[in-house]
Amino acid sequence: MAKPISIYQLEGGPNQFFSPFCWAAKFAVAHKGFAIENIRWKFREADKIAFSNQGLVPVIVDGNKDGKWVNDSWAIAKYLEKTYPHRPSLFGEAAVLFVQKWFQTGGPLDVLDKILVLDEFNALTPDLQPWFRETREPMFGCTLEEYSVGEAGVPDFRKALEPMRQLLAEYPYLGGKDSPSYADDFVAGFFMMAYALSPVKLLEKDDVIHAWRERMMAAYGGIGKTAIGYPESL
Amino acid sequence: MAKPISIYQLEGGPNQFFSPFCWAAKFAVAHKGFAIENIRWKFREADKIAFSNQGLVPVIVDGNKDGKWVNDSWAIAKYLEKTYPHRPSLFGEAAVLFVQKWFQTGGPLDVLDKILVLDEFNALTPDLQPWFRETREPMFGCTLEEYSVGEAGVPDFRKALEPMRQLLAEYPYLGGKDSPSYADDFVAGFFMMAYALSPVKLLEKDDVIHAWRERMMAAYGGIGKTAIGYPESL
Repeated sequence: MAKPISIYQLEGGPNQFFSPFCWAAKFAVAHKGFAIENIRWKFREADKIAFSNQGLVPVIVDGNKDGKWVNDSWAIAKYLEKTYPHRPSLFGEAAVLFVQKWFQTGGPLDVLDKILVLDEFNALTPDLQPWFRETREPMFGCTLEEYSVGEAGVPDFRKALEPMRQLLAEYPYLGGKDSPSYADDFVAGFFMMAYALSPVKLLEKDDVIHAWRERMMAAYGGIGKTAIGYPESL
Repeated sequence: MAKPISIYQLEGGPNQFFSPFCWAAKFAVAHKGFAIENIRWKFREADKIAFSNQGLVPVIVDGNKDGKWVNDSWAIAKYLEKTYPHRPSLFGEAAVLFVQKWFQTGGPLDVLDKILVLDEFNALTPDLQPWFRETREPMFGCTLEEYSVGEAGVPDFRKALEPMRQLLAEYPYLGGKDSPSYADDFVAGFFMMAYALSPVKLLEKDDVIHAWRERMMAAYGGIGKTAIGYPESL
């Protein structure tokens, strides 16, 4: 029978366990079906977790693996998934849909649309332009020209990409270490939209997202690279 | 040998293929290793895709499955993953880390911290309070009292959760249809923090996130429900 896994977790005040990272680790251990042994740890009790060569909780100690310890909630999640792959998985496909929701809902797309709207209008054949204006302007509640921010929107767009930037600082793809996922395909689609429509430089060359876009345009036999667009925008 | 998959994709202007959703579908088909047959579709060409009983592209037609068609980029991704599970996966674990980055980086946590900071301060034993103030105030660039927004931050917090709300309108968990993932565990940890610290009602009862929080507090034998906190906050 599996032994319990111990968790050093923050007791912030008497009987107050409010650290979200300790809770995440605790949920993850329970998620994998292990009993939990709670070990109370108060702020600044460095000695108590000195064995882990660092000063923060959560730290788990796995009685099933000769007392192996792991610190940091995400490292704990990855350890549990790798060590106990046949127990309920900590990873799930819906997170790929979440990336899409993030991009489109109050996120980067809000400003990207405003950067590109007049380019899109101008790309249309003249017979379609009145229809585009008549259908979009009521949605925007203003004229296309009022809605447009053009290049001035680029700093806000870059800022809105921050969660993706932080992820790509750790992984080459939104899909992980080795290959893209549909989350990559989806977000790359919007960069293809920009490439097709506009000479505006959306990304700085030293941005990890810039290198990711290169990889995505070269992926799958380079179908992105062969598209017609504005190379000067890259 | 596999036959190509056809894609009806938007030709927005002459030779201009800028629809991000068509690009996402195109990347996804290439991702699965199929050759692509491009079929040009112009705005308002309803007749050309009338077979799909709707008026938007992308639509794919799969020559390997008796010409089965699928419309909508996310439905196409799910169809490809389900139909061709042994080809490179469209889903990847890093998206679970993305949910964490989203929550913490310019997202819901920014405001949640400001709602809870004084509750956290007050939860500490008196010996730790000066240390908390001395370490946090330089990070915030102001006093704890100036940083705090308390209950007034709740509308912004709810708004920042919008991508998660949209996801949970389609799936019971961030992890998908049947069970939580570590993305659920992680975000639930922050709701446990709030539960432990504050009577503030973060969520309205008719919010899908409210029902999700119930499910997460009851998950894994109910370890969340047994925690000491403010039941009136739920």
